[in-house]
Amino acid sequence: MYLRIMDVLPWAIRSTKLEKEHKRLQESLTSIGNGYMGMRGNFEETYSADSHLGTYIAGVWFPDKTRVGWWKNGYPKYFGKAINALNFSKVAIFVDNQEVDLAKNEVANFAIELDMKTGVFRRQFTVFGVKFAITKFLSVAQKELAAIRWEMVAVDGKTHEVRINSMIDADVKNEDSNYEEKFWQVLAREVNAETSAIATQTVANPFGVEQFIVNAEQHFAGDFNVSSSQEQDWQVSNEFSGSVGSETQFFEKRVIITTSRDYADLEAVQKAGRELSEKVAKQSFADLLAAHKAGWLKRWESADVVISGNNEAQQGIRFNLFQLFATYYGEDARLNIGPKGFTGEKYGGATYWDTEAYAVPLYLALAEPQVTRNLLKYRHNQLPQAKHNAGQQGLAGALYPMVTFTGVECHNEWEITFEEIHRNGAIAYAIYNYTNYTGDESYLAKEGLEVLVEISRFWADRVHFSNRHGKYMMHGVTGPNEYENNINNNWYTNNLAAWVLEYTSAALAKYPRPDLNVSAEELAKWADIIANMYRPFDAELNVFVQHDGFLDKDLRPVSALSKDDLPLNQKWSWDKILRSPFIKQADVLQGIYFFGDRFTLDEKRRNFDFYEPMTVHESSLSPSIHAILAAELGKEEKAVEMYQRTARLDLDNYNNDTEDGLHITSMTGSWLGIVQGFAQMKTWGGKLSFAPFLPSVWTGYAFHINYRGRLIKVTVDSANVKLNLLKGDALKLSVYGQEVELQSEFVTALQRGE
Amino acid sequence: MYLRIMDVLPWAIRSTKLEKEHKRLQESLTSIGNGYMGMRGNFEETYSADSHLGTYIAGVWFPDKTRVGWWKNGYPKYFGKAINALNFSKVAIFVDNQEVDLAKNEVANFAIELDMKTGVFRRQFTVFGVKFAITKFLSVAQKELAAIRWEMVAVDGKTHEVRINSMIDADVKNEDSNYEEKFWQVLAREVNAETSAIATQTVANPFGVEQFIVNAEQHFAGDFNVSSSQEQDWQVSNEFSGSVGSETQFFEKRVIITTSRDYADLEAVQKAGRELSEKVAKQSFADLLAAHKAGWLKRWESADVVISGNNEAQQGIRFNLFQLFATYYGEDARLNIGPKGFTGEKYGGATYWDTEAYAVPLYLALAEPQVTRNLLKYRHNQLPQAKHNAGQQGLAGALYPMVTFTGVECHNEWEITFEEIHRNGAIAYAIYNYTNYTGDESYLAKEGLEVLVEISRFWADRVHFSNRHGKYMMHGVTGPNEYENNINNNWYTNNLAAWVLEYTSAALAKYPRPDLNVSAEELAKWADIIANMYRPFDAELNVFVQHDGFLDKDLRPVSALSKDDLPLNQKWSWDKILRSPFIKQADVLQGIYFFGDRFTLDEKRRNFDFYEPMTVHESSLSPSIHAILAAELGKEEKAVEMYQRTARLDLDNYNNDTEDGLHITSMTGSWLGIVQGFAQMKTWGGKLSFAPFLPSVWTGYAFHINYRGRLIKVTVDSANVKLNLLKGDALKLSVYGQEVELQSEFVTALQRGE
Repeated sequence: MYLRIMDVLPWAIRSTKLEKEHKRLQESLTSIGNGYMGMRGNFEETYSADSHLGTYIAGVWFPDKTRVGWWKNGYPKYFGKAINALNFSKVAIFVDNQEVDLAKNEVANFAIELDMKTGVFRRQFTVFGVKFAITKFLSVAQKELAAIRWEMVAVDGKTHEVRINSMIDADVKNEDSNYEEKFWQVLAREVNAETSAIATQTVANPFGVEQFIVNAEQHFAGDFNVSSSQEQDWQVSNEFSGSVGSETQFFEKRVIITTSRDYADLEAVQKAGRELSEKVAKQSFADLLAAHKAGWLKRWESADVVISGNNEAQQGIRFNLFQLFATYYGEDARLNIGPKGFTGEKYGGATYWDTEAYAVPLYLALAEPQVTRNLLKYRHNQLPQAKHNAGQQGLAGALYPMVTFTGVECHNEWEITFEEIHRNGAIAYAIYNYTNYTGDESYLAKEGLEVLVEISRFWADRVHFSNRHGKYMMHGVTGPNEYENNINNNWYTNNLAAWVLEYTSAALAKYPRPDLNVSAEELAKWADIIANMYRPFDAELNVFVQHDGFLDKDLRPVSALSKDDLPLNQKWSWDKILRSPFIKQADVLQGIYFFGDRFTLDEKRRNFDFYEPMTVHESSLSPSIHAILAAELGKEEKAVEMYQRTARLDLDNYNNDTEDGLHITSMTGSWLGIVQGFAQMKTWGGKLSFAPFLPSVWTGYAFHINYRGRLIKVTVDSANVKLNLLKGDALKLSVYGQEVELQSEFVTALQRGE
Repeated sequence: MYLRIMDVLPWAIRSTKLEKEHKRLQESLTSIGNGYMGMRGNFEETYSADSHLGTYIAGVWFPDKTRVGWWKNGYPKYFGKAINALNFSKVAIFVDNQEVDLAKNEVANFAIELDMKTGVFRRQFTVFGVKFAITKFLSVAQKELAAIRWEMVAVDGKTHEVRINSMIDADVKNEDSNYEEKFWQVLAREVNAETSAIATQTVANPFGVEQFIVNAEQHFAGDFNVSSSQEQDWQVSNEFSGSVGSETQFFEKRVIITTSRDYADLEAVQKAGRELSEKVAKQSFADLLAAHKAGWLKRWESADVVISGNNEAQQGIRFNLFQLFATYYGEDARLNIGPKGFTGEKYGGATYWDTEAYAVPLYLALAEPQVTRNLLKYRHNQLPQAKHNAGQQGLAGALYPMVTFTGVECHNEWEITFEEIHRNGAIAYAIYNYTNYTGDESYLAKEGLEVLVEISRFWADRVHFSNRHGKYMMHGVTGPNEYENNINNNWYTNNLAAWVLEYTSAALAKYPRPDLNVSAEELAKWADIIANMYRPFDAELNVFVQHDGFLDKDLRPVSALSKDDLPLNQKWSWDKILRSPFIKQADVLQGIYFFGDRFTLDEKRRNFDFYEPMTVHESSLSPSIHAILAAELGKEEKAVEMYQRTARLDLDNYNNDTEDGLHITSMTGSWLGIVQGFAQMKTWGGKLSFAPFLPSVWTGYAFHINYRGRLIKVTVDSANVKLNLLKGDALKLSVYGQEVELQSEFVTALQRGE
């Protein structure tokens, strides 16, 4: 734990402290989103000290020209970035002509809260004798709607003149643009007495990437009267004022955001904005809020994980699920899960292999199969671009990108773009995972095979035959452990590539696809690669070897380091990190996790015991995989330590970087830790099984899963494991190795670990 | 050969073609310099089409803030760049109020010529009825002086009004600044009727790097009268005019450049400029030119290499020697040899390992020992900074930089800064080379050991002990072959590091240095590393192995590639290059070249035959080493092919990049090819020897060498090898293995190769 600034509550992220020193961190932690748009927990009114104002619209991005020191052939031309969009929450508030600015004012009764149960952001404070209470939400019932309500009452017995100037500000810059350019231009402004709108567009680019139009229209409600309306180059505004005495007054701002992602042109975008504004104007704040809350309550109904006896763990898992769903709930098949969601602008791109490796298992269990199918379809749609990426490296088939919006690789870091090709295996693995979990082979047979064949062609071209060893090898890769690069024969990558060839060959045999033109020679070549892939193994140590040179290193456990050395990525030169034996995140163990049914418990234990002590877990993706394996191996203490780290990564700012935004794609880790770890849910060979244990620091936990048309509730307490079939037909499954047919309820005694 | 645009003449680089399409290339090829300053072969008058105006002052540089995509701990903060300085040659010429601009005018009688024998740049052309003949030189007799003379005569029988506006223009930008910043500001301007001056300074920087002051003062001579003088923000100018008829008129511009490298402050810099201007004003152009020419003639006296029967080869070697000496003639111990000299601004830095590996052998033979000693002293002066560099990587001792001005590493490319540490060995090797060549051990005993001990400490810390192999290893390096990186156990680097430890230990035994605090334990550790260094060798192939994974590659010769694949660095993705077996420049063979007396002819042949066929020679440093080894192995055809490539690299634009500037540090290669290659000059074990052969395409060649107080002329023709002792005492040496005492002349029959 690096820093905890918010109170520990089961359903809320709350503080009564105005965190001037940690404003950006607080803003990250109180971010809200509805899958269509999102924003950091910014103050709407002026705040003149350090802060990071951030508003983001899903699927709206800009290709930022590549910035590297020395150009190398094959580098992507741009780095796509999810960009900071117009600030539509903005207001300036004046009490008796004194501007409200919490950075400068004397503030009383300050509170800030993210209500995770209903997706509502609330604040309150008293300045200049007036108490303000603010409620804001991005509606999950009407995705284009942002609504903010101010309640004001004088607490000093006086009457105050309050003036609120409500703006939409398009003068926004990204914090990390490569060349300090502005990504936006204004297309149109419209200002009426009681409404105003501004339409913006991303500036032109030389890469043929679509220029997105984003339009914001604001209208108002409440007790105040309009006093003026204005437009400037980058801004439109309407100003309202009223008297505030001992009776509560309110003021509402409602903004409708429409974009060219949904409408054909500027006119259509504006027209849709006007129509939705008019529709929303007819509804009360209470009704709008109620519809929004209902949406969140429905999500929690099947997704909530209840933990008893440990509020920290409880808050952690809910925070992660809330932020994940705020980023992506599967409604729009054109979208994916960006690494920072709507909470910051570090890292470019919308899509990493995180989606397939870490998010798919969660969405499979918590959402309808269609959501995962949309995620798979997203990759299928980008198959032509993945073929382009392979071509850029002079290779056959398809190479899915490390970072992308369109499917074209846009990451500018050498080791990642060119070497970290194991991502291609994760794309294939997700097809297997979906098929195996749902039992639905229709995707595999159709789109799935189209993707698998091209990925297989990539691998078959990327390996080379080493005459000396009589084996197929893969040189020059970076494995999941990004603390090494340009390594030869990464066990994880070699093993995964061979598995893809095997899975594809088997699927082709089951679902012949003459249209894909896989010749007999090609299949024979794949079979030869599968049979003769070099998979580094050390007989003496009896472990899989991370890569060719790993065992030649100066092998030491993390415990041999001084505290001053950690975290390595902040304390050591990159050079020293690369040469060291220390591992950033699961690498061999990631492969063992993926293919849990292909390794014996003994193999798992030996490799875990060998690699985990050298692992520093400095990737947010690391602890969850280790929590799951530790749980399977009965290493309860290690499992709980790892769970804690993944569940409260942002809440406790473990990596000291949450001020830049939340680690959205890592947030599945805590759920995986509980469900696949503590509860030992497996779906090996298409068969559902559980073997739960209860962390000694908890008194119980419960969660739901969707599985093949059923909704199952799993409850673990200090005595029993209980399974309830809430929906769907009876199901054969296994609990602690015992075959069970779950009709409506099954109860068995909790087993304690080894 | 990619493109040859200049005529082939023994002593000149000449063309009668105005190369509008290849203007930059022509400018590079006609660059001049005097070690103190230099410039590209720019036109002084306006030229409105594409061109690269470049003027550079030795030792004047700017720390350009690092530009990388993703920051990694340990990166240098800036990339030092030899920057484009004020343009003091500039004029605007008007004939009857029409501006001379060869890009637009109708031009007759065009010629451009670099006279290498005397270091003079000449041009001529006729426009608007007036013939202009221009002579320009940067004096080697008065380093601060640049002189330009225009001779003008009407060729159309009319009389023309000619006006010359002579400027000093400080409004100069570097072509490759990382953030498009300007590196210069103006400190002072002074404009008098017939002189003017401007003082500039590099802008402030946050890295604590000195801000250099450069002052230029111009004065004039000739038949024209001053008409006006002006100053603007970035410029001072004096305008002259006169009538030009059938009698030749002349106009002279003389510029004195003084800098804060030689004078304490602005006032002193300006005062020196004025005084030198006044001194020079008293001398005629003819006298100034004569003094300059005498300097060049003296240089050629001992350095010229005469080749008979092949003008291309003759022009190539002289061009290389001319440009080398124009860059560095050893007068200023604070300077070194930058990769582009004064001919362009690509690549930053003033100093690469090229100096120690490729330039030192030439300067040892062609200049006084003091010149090489200055180059060694340069590194000794930077020992504290080299220790800083090692500290940046968390390592002991000293790591000399890949690129630097101050000794602090300033290269921003990961693989180079952190991995290409073999450079540290070349620094040590140069100390050995100087000591062995001159027989003077005084440098070794004093400064040399101070450097060697710290380099040894670096190596001793950089290796690690592999328990598995019971050997010391070095992981994560890049060898001389930059077409691979992050490799383990590069034979060249491991071998060189062990040699440094060995050489240092022996020198310490001979010249005890208690002040350096090398303990008995430290010496024992070094001895252990020397004895147990892992030096990859393959018994089956009977070759040294470039690095651990090399033999696992898909090994193929370059001849297996299609022509369309070459050059790889322009045709292939970086990824594909890295994984390929193709070698950029000598790697194992570089080590064999360095330690020629430690390997048998058979070892040399086996390794040459194994590695050379996989070598693409895409580094300008590659062909020379291969020429030398090929010559030793009797592979005459290969030796000549390699010589041709190194000698005319720029003249024939082999790498298609000479427009960016000349490959200055590679220019020693042609000399090495002739002297160490064709003539087989060796100094193994402190004993001079020759075994010349004559390339069948030549009829003879001759060169001089300085060796231990002697000046020896070596002449090879189709019948004989002749050695003349021109200076110094009789010397024992060996020719074709025969022991000879050279008194005044020795002649023996030329032996033909195998």
